[in-house]
Amino acid sequence: MKNSPSTRKKEVKGLLERLGEKIYQQIEQGNFPEVEMPSRSVKNIVYDKELKQYVVGGNMVKRNAKNIKHLRPFTQTIWLAFFVNKLINEGKTSTLRDVYYSAQAFNIEFTDQAESDEIITDLEALLRKSREDYNVYPEERSAIYGDLTITYTVPGHEGKKLNLASHPDGYLIGSSLSTAEFTKTSAKLVFAVEKGGLFTRFVENNVHEKYRALIVDTAGQPPRSTRYFLKRLNQELGLPVYVLTDADPYGMHIFMVIASGSANAAHLTELTVPTAKWLGVTATDIETYKLPYVKLKDEDVKRAYELKNDPRYKDVRFQKELDVFIKKQKKAELEAFAKYSLDYIVEKYLPDKLKEINSK
Amino acid sequence: MKNSPSTRKKEVKGLLERLGEKIYQQIEQGNFPEVEMPSRSVKNIVYDKELKQYVVGGNMVKRNAKNIKHLRPFTQTIWLAFFVNKLINEGKTSTLRDVYYSAQAFNIEFTDQAESDEIITDLEALLRKSREDYNVYPEERSAIYGDLTITYTVPGHEGKKLNLASHPDGYLIGSSLSTAEFTKTSAKLVFAVEKGGLFTRFVENNVHEKYRALIVDTAGQPPRSTRYFLKRLNQELGLPVYVLTDADPYGMHIFMVIASGSANAAHLTELTVPTAKWLGVTATDIETYKLPYVKLKDEDVKRAYELKNDPRYKDVRFQKELDVFIKKQKKAELEAFAKYSLDYIVEKYLPDKLKEINSK
Repeated sequence: MKNSPSTRKKEVKGLLERLGEKIYQQIEQGNFPEVEMPSRSVKNIVYDKELKQYVVGGNMVKRNAKNIKHLRPFTQTIWLAFFVNKLINEGKTSTLRDVYYSAQAFNIEFTDQAESDEIITDLEALLRKSREDYNVYPEERSAIYGDLTITYTVPGHEGKKLNLASHPDGYLIGSSLSTAEFTKTSAKLVFAVEKGGLFTRFVENNVHEKYRALIVDTAGQPPRSTRYFLKRLNQELGLPVYVLTDADPYGMHIFMVIASGSANAAHLTELTVPTAKWLGVTATDIETYKLPYVKLKDEDVKRAYELKNDPRYKDVRFQKELDVFIKKQKKAELEAFAKYSLDYIVEKYLPDKLKEINSK
Repeated sequence: MKNSPSTRKKEVKGLLERLGEKIYQQIEQGNFPEVEMPSRSVKNIVYDKELKQYVVGGNMVKRNAKNIKHLRPFTQTIWLAFFVNKLINEGKTSTLRDVYYSAQAFNIEFTDQAESDEIITDLEALLRKSREDYNVYPEERSAIYGDLTITYTVPGHEGKKLNLASHPDGYLIGSSLSTAEFTKTSAKLVFAVEKGGLFTRFVENNVHEKYRALIVDTAGQPPRSTRYFLKRLNQELGLPVYVLTDADPYGMHIFMVIASGSANAAHLTELTVPTAKWLGVTATDIETYKLPYVKLKDEDVKRAYELKNDPRYKDVRFQKELDVFIKKQKKAELEAFAKYSLDYIVEKYLPDKLKEINSK
């Protein structure tokens, strides 16, 4: 498969080797080595209407070992490239925090983890690959459940298969699952839900069977590896992705980041599912379903106004929902449907909303 | 097995039925119904030296439907007993938040989730069973990995077996795993670690094979269902439990709650692993291993002084470590060992500390 994990890993290894070669060549030619990467400054982040996401523009920045100001980040970047190359060769992964501490083993200085996180993002921009591609993972992890058979590619488990419907509490989406090949599925769609409680409700009420669905718990704003995983489900298996969140501006934005990415990952265009649909819970749903609500806080209202001016929200449906939030000043949680019964969200709300969304 | 999940579930059903019968009998006899439970007020929480944990004392409180002040919590408690009985009969689980919203379906009023959480704890005290026994779970979930074959008891999966070494990213410890029977294991011990990053490191470095270990990610302070799960691994399988945390007073307390419970669960004595051992990272380890550290914050120091006066910390080893925290004013993270190499914590620190602890 074009975009399969093993293909990607080979590609990243190739990119790292070419980076190394380039540095050596420059030195052998008697030049100070330099690297060039797209600028990640706010001025160079633009909204791409076609891709429906933020991307980096054409401005490039250079880091040259000759420049005393560049020397520190240049050295850090090259060390990081060396370190992740080692990770890949040894079949290991690392957390963002591990990278920060590991640098000390090589006498590379980072003032704090914020600085090493920044260099990790620089390397993403340089290679145009996300950090998970070079084996660096965050701590937060989401989970999945449903009929999908995967084949591992990680050392010690290569070639082993697992069906993700065998453990009803869900499988963590860590490095092993992120890099597994998708082998077989009967699923027709994906439900991405914001909360573990709803994830369990869906499993208990057999949503995976009734809708032939894979159920993903994003655990709040999904970590990047989960967004990439959703994209793979969408692209490699051709499954539509439906997102369910709390009814508040932050919930809407969980959906929007899945669909249209975030400005701080503008240098990566491989993390979005542009066809993802927001099922709700919408501001309008709070009224329609007479849900228990709490009053929006000042920060929620401020956030709603910000989103109204965000190019990702220009669609009339999103504008309307933001207006309802601002006008009614109400927010509600996914669990609020339990007011009617624990089954209500599965038996009534879910089919209603699927019908509504798919008739548009 | 005496304490097996299915036995426990039957026991809870029996307790709920007897509670219902008692209420009916009182009404039929022309009396206002009442329930009696141990007081959970601070005055009635005492440290039990033998059990090495907080327990509730002999003071009981009554809730009588005759008393206008009692009527609200009495009604809420009886409704909750009805609701969880329904959950058990239908083979469903619920989150703490679901319970709050579900009450509205029955016109039972709770001002906020804090009030319903309080009544859930009351029912725990009344039945002397933890909320997981009556199918109410929190959202947070930890994970496990290692050679343990379990047999599910949840509807739809009854009798199915799963080996917990088949998914290297780990299995979430939710209601299905919490209620599964332990069928077979080659494990000799359990490592409970505070962080997902270290969990992954342990799996990648084959700690589960080298030590014949089950590895549990507590995800910070473990939710109660995970503490109960650790107790089951300890009691039913006879496995010693070793805990690894960050080197700070909060990390120490993660260990202590696993070993000796918490004051706010004093009405439950079934959640502790009194023989659990704290491997570290200790305050002394920061010096011994010359770990990268940050300065203790004022709140860390305050916490250390509080713990020094806590009866659970009277052991000379804990007193000494708290003194070192206070004197040196340093804290360090588990990831800090990456200063030497990613493998160091597994290859050097872990065997060193196991030797040290087991020679005592």
